[in-house]
Amino acid sequence: MSLFTDLIPTLITETPAEGRELAMMMARKTIASIQPDAEVRGALRGDYADDTEQLMHAAHIVAVEFQTIAAANNYWRG
Amino acid sequence: MSLFTDLIPTLITETPAEGRELAMMMARKTIASIQPDAEVRGALRGDYADDTEQLMHAAHIVAVEFQTIAAANNYWRG
Amino acid sequence: MSLFTDLIPTLITETPAEGRELAMMMARKTIASIQPDAEVRGALRGDYADDTEQLMHAAHIVAVEFQTIAAANNYWRG
Amino acid sequence: MSLFTDLIPTLITETPAEGRELAMMMARKTIASIQPDAEVRGALRGDYADDTEQLMHAAHIVAVEFQTIAAANNYWRG
Amino acid sequence: MSLFTDLIPTLITETPAEGRELAMMMARKTIASIQPDAEVRGALRGDYADDTEQLMHAAHIVAVEFQTIAAANNYWRG
Amino acid sequence: MSLFTDLIPTLITETPAEGRELAMMMARKTIASIQPDAEVRGALRGDYADDTEQLMHAAHIVAVEFQTIAAANNYWRG
Repeated sequence: MSLFTDLIPTLITETPAEGRELAMMMARKTIASIQPDAEVRGALRGDYADDTEQLMHAAHIVAVEFQTIAAANNYWRG
Repeated sequence: MSLFTDLIPTLITETPAEGRELAMMMARKTIASIQPDAEVRGALRGDYADDTEQLMHAAHIVAVEFQTIAAANNYWRG
Repeated sequence: MSLFTDLIPTLITETPAEGRELAMMMARKTIASIQPDAEVRGALRGDYADDTEQLMHAAHIVAVEFQTIAAANNYWRG
Repeated sequence: MSLFTDLIPTLITETPAEGRELAMMMARKTIASIQPDAEVRGALRGDYADDTEQLMHAAHIVAVEFQTIAAANNYWRG
Repeated sequence: MSLFTDLIPTLITETPAEGRELAMMMARKTIASIQPDAEVRGALRGDYADDTEQLMHAAHIVAVEFQTIAAANNYWRG
Repeated sequence: MSLFTDLIPTLITETPAEGRELAMMMARKTIASIQPDAEVRGALRGDYADDTEQLMHAAHIVAVEFQTIAAANNYWRG
C-alpha cells in the first residue's frame, strides 16, 4: 500500500479552489516523503518562507501540480 | 471550505486578457498562502521587483498558470 | 477592464512567426506589469542581456508561452 | 534490453497514490542511472535533504513525472 | 511582418530529427532577438558552452520547444 | 540531412523502458550538439555527476523529454 493512499484518493474535486488546495497538499507531501523528519522540515521552513526565490519555486511547483489536477477535472467546465 | 473559494470560483474567463489577469492572481495568492504575513511579503517585494532573475521566475510561473487557464477556455477560439 | 485587453485581444495568429512574436510580447508585458517602472526595467535590461543564464531563462519563458499559443492555433497545420 | 525494463514495465497504476509512487521512483532511477555509484549518491543525499531549494527541485521533477503518469491513466477518472 | 517569418515558416517537419533541429534553431533565434548583438552573443557563448548548468538549461529549453513541435507533427506517428 | 537523423529515427518505442532510454539519449545528444568537444564534455561530466543540483536538472530534462515520448506512444496503454 502506498504512502499516498489516504492523501490522494482521487484527483477529482468539486471546485477549482479545492483543486488548488490539493495541488498545494501534493507538493508538500512530496517534500515530506523525501525529508520525513518533521523537525528538519520545520527548520527549513524558516529558510524558504522569507526567501522570494524559494517562495517562487514553491509557487511554480503548485502551478505544475494544478495543471494535472485541472486537466483531470476537465477544468471544472461544468 | 477552501481558502481559494472566493478567489478562484472558475477558470473560465471572457477574454484572453482576463485569463492573463487570473493567471497572475493565482500565482500571487499561492505565494500569499505560503507566506501569509503581508508585511513580510511587502519587504520581500522589494527584493524581486529589482532583480531580473526573480522577475523572470515570476513571469515563468504566470506562463504556466496561463497554460492551464487557456486550455480551460479552449483558447478563446470563439 | 484588464490591463492586457489591448495587448492580447486573441491568441489566434496567421502564422507561427506571428505566434512567436506574441509569445515574446506576452512574456515582456508580464514583467512590465510586475515592475511597472520603465526606468527600473531599462536598468535591469543591462543585467540580463549580457548574462547567458538570464537570456536562457527569458528564452525558456518564451518557449512556454509559445506552447500555449501554438496549441491555440492547432499548430497552424492549415 | 533496457536498464529500466524491470523498473517501469508500465505507466498504468491502480490509483493516483500508486501513480505518485511511480513518479518518485522514476525520478530517483534517472538520477541513479546518471550517477551509478550508490556511495556517491548516499553522500549527495545529505546535501539535498537539508536544502530547501534542492528539496523543491526534487518535488518539481516529481510533479512533471506525475503529469505524464496521470495522463497515461486518464487521471483515474474511473 | 515578423522577424521570424523566414525562420519559422511552419512547425511541420518530415522527421523527428528535423523537428529536433527546428527546436534548437527556435531557441537560438529567441536569444538572438533578445540580444541582437552577434559579437556579444559570441562572447557569451564561451560562458555557457563550458558550464554544465548552462548547457543543461539550453537542453531544457530545446526539450520544451520540441514538445510543441512534436505535438504539431502528431509525433510523426506516420 | 540532420545531425539527429540516425539518432532519432522515430519517437515510437516498444515499451516505457525503451522510451525512458530514448529520453535520456535525446537530452545527452542535445548537449553534445551544443558542446561538440567530447573532451570538454568529459571534463564537465565530473562537475555535474557529483553535484545534486545538476543531477536534478538532468533528471528534470529527462522528465520533460519523456512527456513527449510517452504522448507519442499513447502511453503504451496497449
